Amino acid sequence: MARTCLAVILAAGDSTRMKSSMSKVLHPIAGLPMISHVMRAVRDAEIKDAVLVLGRDADAVAKAGAVEGMAVSTVLQTERKGTGHAVLMARDAIAKGFDEVLVTYGDVPLVRSETFQNARSLLSSGADLVVIGFEAADPTGYGRLLVEDGQLVAIREHKDATEEERKVTRCNSGLMVINGARALGWLEKIDNKNAKGEYYLTDLVEIARADGAKVVAVDAPEAELAGCNTRAELALLEASWQNRRRHEIMLSGVSMIAPETVFLAFDTVLQQDVLVEPNVVFGPGVTVESGAVIHAFSHLEGAHVASGATVGPFARLRPGADLGPDSKVGNFCEVKKATIGEGAKVNHLTYIGDASIGAGSNIGAGTITCNYDGINKHETRIGENAFIGSNSALVAPVSIGNGAYVASGSVITENVPDDALAFGRARQEVKPDRAKQVRERALAFKAAKKAGQ
Amino acid sequence: MARTCLAVILAAGDSTRMKSSMSKVLHPIAGLPMISHVMRAVRDAEIKDAVLVLGRDADAVAKAGAVEGMAVSTVLQTERKGTGHAVLMARDAIAKGFDEVLVTYGDVPLVRSETFQNARSLLSSGADLVVIGFEAADPTGYGRLLVEDGQLVAIREHKDATEEERKVTRCNSGLMVINGARALGWLEKIDNKNAKGEYYLTDLVEIARADGAKVVAVDAPEAELAGCNTRAELALLEASWQNRRRHEIMLSGVSMIAPETVFLAFDTVLQQDVLVEPNVVFGPGVTVESGAVIHAFSHLEGAHVASGATVGPFARLRPGADLGPDSKVGNFCEVKKATIGEGAKVNHLTYIGDASIGAGSNIGAGTITCNYDGINKHETRIGENAFIGSNSALVAPVSIGNGAYVASGSVITENVPDDALAFGRARQEVKPDRAKQVRERALAFKAAKKAGQ
Amino acid sequence: MARTCLAVILAAGDSTRMKSSMSKVLHPIAGLPMISHVMRAVRDAEIKDAVLVLGRDADAVAKAGAVEGMAVSTVLQTERKGTGHAVLMARDAIAKGFDEVLVTYGDVPLVRSETFQNARSLLSSGADLVVIGFEAADPTGYGRLLVEDGQLVAIREHKDATEEERKVTRCNSGLMVINGARALGWLEKIDNKNAKGEYYLTDLVEIARADGAKVVAVDAPEAELAGCNTRAELALLEASWQNRRRHEIMLSGVSMIAPETVFLAFDTVLQQDVLVEPNVVFGPGVTVESGAVIHAFSHLEGAHVASGATVGPFARLRPGADLGPDSKVGNFCEVKKATIGEGAKVNHLTYIGDASIGAGSNIGAGTITCNYDGINKHETRIGENAFIGSNSALVAPVSIGNGAYVASGSVITENVPDDALAFGRARQEVKPDRAKQVRERALAFKAAKKAGQ
Repeated sequence: MARTCLAVILAAGDSTRMKSSMSKVLHPIAGLPMISHVMRAVRDAEIKDAVLVLGRDADAVAKAGAVEGMAVSTVLQTERKGTGHAVLMARDAIAKGFDEVLVTYGDVPLVRSETFQNARSLLSSGADLVVIGFEAADPTGYGRLLVEDGQLVAIREHKDATEEERKVTRCNSGLMVINGARALGWLEKIDNKNAKGEYYLTDLVEIARADGAKVVAVDAPEAELAGCNTRAELALLEASWQNRRRHEIMLSGVSMIAPETVFLAFDTVLQQDVLVEPNVVFGPGVTVESGAVIHAFSHLEGAHVASGATVGPFARLRPGADLGPDSKVGNFCEVKKATIGEGAKVNHLTYIGDASIGAGSNIGAGTITCNYDGINKHETRIGENAFIGSNSALVAPVSIGNGAYVASGSVITENVPDDALAFGRARQEVKPDRAKQVRERALAFKAAKKAGQ
Repeated sequence: MARTCLAVILAAGDSTRMKSSMSKVLHPIAGLPMISHVMRAVRDAEIKDAVLVLGRDADAVAKAGAVEGMAVSTVLQTERKGTGHAVLMARDAIAKGFDEVLVTYGDVPLVRSETFQNARSLLSSGADLVVIGFEAADPTGYGRLLVEDGQLVAIREHKDATEEERKVTRCNSGLMVINGARALGWLEKIDNKNAKGEYYLTDLVEIARADGAKVVAVDAPEAELAGCNTRAELALLEASWQNRRRHEIMLSGVSMIAPETVFLAFDTVLQQDVLVEPNVVFGPGVTVESGAVIHAFSHLEGAHVASGATVGPFARLRPGADLGPDSKVGNFCEVKKATIGEGAKVNHLTYIGDASIGAGSNIGAGTITCNYDGINKHETRIGENAFIGSNSALVAPVSIGNGAYVASGSVITENVPDDALAFGRARQEVKPDRAKQVRERALAFKAAKKAGQ
Repeated sequence: MARTCLAVILAAGDSTRMKSSMSKVLHPIAGLPMISHVMRAVRDAEIKDAVLVLGRDADAVAKAGAVEGMAVSTVLQTERKGTGHAVLMARDAIAKGFDEVLVTYGDVPLVRSETFQNARSLLSSGADLVVIGFEAADPTGYGRLLVEDGQLVAIREHKDATEEERKVTRCNSGLMVINGARALGWLEKIDNKNAKGEYYLTDLVEIARADGAKVVAVDAPEAELAGCNTRAELALLEASWQNRRRHEIMLSGVSMIAPETVFLAFDTVLQQDVLVEPNVVFGPGVTVESGAVIHAFSHLEGAHVASGATVGPFARLRPGADLGPDSKVGNFCEVKKATIGEGAKVNHLTYIGDASIGAGSNIGAGTITCNYDGINKHETRIGENAFIGSNSALVAPVSIGNGAYVASGSVITENVPDDALAFGRARQEVKPDRAKQVRERALAFKAAKKAGQ
């Protein structure tokens, strides 16, 4: 039977240096709150139970921390007395008895479930306390992992370290997994007899060793364990996440001409042989199938792009946009809650909202689906192989039949049957030589205005 | 009483490597000419008098160098005989008698007033000559600051330096502050007995020391003192400026998902809790209030965005755009010289120019304010809670009343009273089965054209 | 008489790690397939004959590898037995007798013709085999160039190198030039008596030396010789190419505010004093003349922009867009196969396709040339100093005369003579107090819909 594990997620920080009206862990990375990233990594490490230790914005953090497939409870930390004290907020849950207790921060959104699993597997094979560490490019300020004979003997804070100890570059991330049966006893032994009068979780190492336990360290890449205290550091986390994900996606067979200008969401799916040009932003919920091309300056969210379709440049696909195979949505076009049939074209300066467009139809430049009456949204249905002339307004609810033809510049308010031709525009009048008169009037207006000033 | 200081700004360079039709110091950084950046730093160091030493494009540089709160005179340098000679162009001004004389180049747009003030404060406390230096990442080519017992004993040019001296990484920026009473005497002692036959300002160090003066160096970050000789270096200055300012703004509580893709102007104001998505360009004159969101691919200039408003993606705000609280300007929309009332929406493919839109109004997709008659610009006034149907043209001057309703696809040429409904579109006609005929005609045309080729 | 040279280009790789439906060498850099970059460098090194050694996608690679001014033959490599074997696929061509044989890979798109010429010139002056090498930042994995007394004595593979040899940082690029008279003899001496059972081209060094030949190495920058095996590496090649070209263009007198956001095509021409703002994408075939400004968020392909013209922000110029001096194409405008006359303005939300616009004309916001009838493309001709009112639809084929004036919101289906005024819009009707009724109906609809759910 699989070993049980309780995750304790510390998410109570005040994070004043973020200068934010919301809790730090709610700030998004790749469109998903940091706390949600951490919870997903916890879940993917096959952990079924978690306690969120909350402070500021407790309700919102609890909501963002909920994750399918896990039992997540919450506890409010009202005092700030150090990390050891914070973990003990979860005392009741720990007391229920788990094989393991994993402790993590809520602001490490790049942490991978593999890292949690590596630490857990060391518990399975006999360790009692596993501290997750990293090789620091610059260890200044970090607690050093002091290892002897393969055992972690202490975490030495930078300020307390000797010259020799400061040369150690392996550092403490603050994340650890503890023998569940012994966790509570050890946690309660942490005291606050130190300069700051705080309870430090790192004391656990020496407490556990004094208790005859096996204490070890396991490493993960530094970038994966980074947290943030300012918005500048938040931007670094985002950059790090984006770079990691871009690299993975390119290795899977997606071309990005300038990956550093492509912004992915946490759940973006790009299949092999998709081409993404520079300057593309993916919001959540996008799937792009093999062979599709996303041209420069495109913005997609909640959209599906089928094989062979092309998007942009300068296209915006909003939630519910569903582009069929080999269809095309071109420049300065917005598509929302609409299906675009196979091979259909929406090429220029068009708004398609609450609509369906049949296969092979062509929507002329400047076409607008007038879907909103100020109160309701109405639907526009366009059949197959229809032709909508440029600069037309389709006033929903309205249907255009298969093979129908709407003349350019028309306002269409009534349904157009299959194969019918619809007009909705005024007849042109020409007044010879009258342009001069128009200009003279305009010049007179200008002169009058100037005189009046 | 505050000590007086004269700033001498060297801005006469030919800058041929810029390959530019204008003087180097006129090239902008963050939307402001380099010379203006320098003058602002001078002014903010509480310096009231300046002389611009000009060469190419003298009038334009003088104009760009004018700064409120300072008396700026100009002098034309017609010969190029070295930096010492250039500073002496300001002889008359120096002779007026100032406590201090500050010398700076016109092409160091990142210099901060704090750096000038640091140097000035050393004069206040007894130094006679203060050279501004920096720790060079790679000192090759720079003059080295040779310091003994806290005194600057010489500036050694790279080519003249011994092996030992070349190991010095503290280098000369060329900027300095001189005891105003002694400056002219020292400057006149500079000779041109050297390989190039030029008068070097750096000789001042040894001249001052020979005169028994106290000469010291003060450091500033290397990036702050960088100048440029090519457009590639100009781009590096821009990048350096942008990075510095982005960082400051993020630390003040603004979120930038990808700061490296956000371009700020010299005067951009973003309040706390503003969110800026990737790929946003701020031209001069923009203020964004707390809680507003600037979505990806937006371009703002001379615009005010109130609290809670959202802009973009793909929005362009031009000078005079004034967005009220919780208002919205969406994709492919342009707003110029127009107020958008509280909660009003301009969501798609719209041009709003020379207009006012009342609170709560909704402007449909594809709406155009026809503000130009070829000669004059006219105004469009839209009241509160009005509804402008999609693809409408509002031919200015025109007013739409409060609560009025304009049908989609209308051309509005006359005022619409409060609560009135206005139409301005042709009635639709449908010709059953006629689409086929249209297509046949088109195919015949195609065939004829092909045959005619 | 100039020395003759045969280039053998190895382009048969399977490139499975690219995870691509096409051959690696067909992937573009700066809009041109990698193989075409290599072929252009070969041609520019004054080489007239080449053999492409092909595998996957042979026809497409052969087509992309064809280059004007060269005789390019192809040979299919059906077995993969190493680089030595691959070059021997070109046996028949080599046997024809050339002074030199140059061997290069097809996936080194940054290689410069100067590098080939440097190597060739060493042959001219007596060398028999010239290996092109580079100083590796990190030599791990590369073959080391072992040089003694100016002669290359061996290429030592990383895995076979001694500790001492591994310290050598000068590495083998795989590119070389061989004495044409001796090439075939030497190539045939390569055997496959090694762990992998492959024929290694690098054996040529020792074979040539054993034959008493003079073997030397010549260096090129590492970046220039990089190839790629994954799409992530492909992106690095693109970045490297872009950085090199941006730098060259800036040094030639073009301003780029943020060069890292400007994407150039292989053939982009930007004249001195062009200003390119951030986020601009150049597709192939663009020329921009001196003094033109390309604003942020612009996308150009196959376009010509004359002196003093301004483009964007948010403009798209498609093939055949030809902007006259001082003309302007502004935000959310698309221009395709159209000439814009001197000083003419297309400022907002406009589609101009298959059209000509005369000098000084003004095209109002939201204007659409309705150029497509579903089957044919038709032309729109607008004369000089014409005024097209906003939101007009010009249904092609149609001509608007010089000085003509089209009223806003018109649908124009017939020609408008010079100086005529044309209307094509319905007269406005106003129904007082009817807006309330419209809203009540909409609310009732909403309520009914809700009740029906």
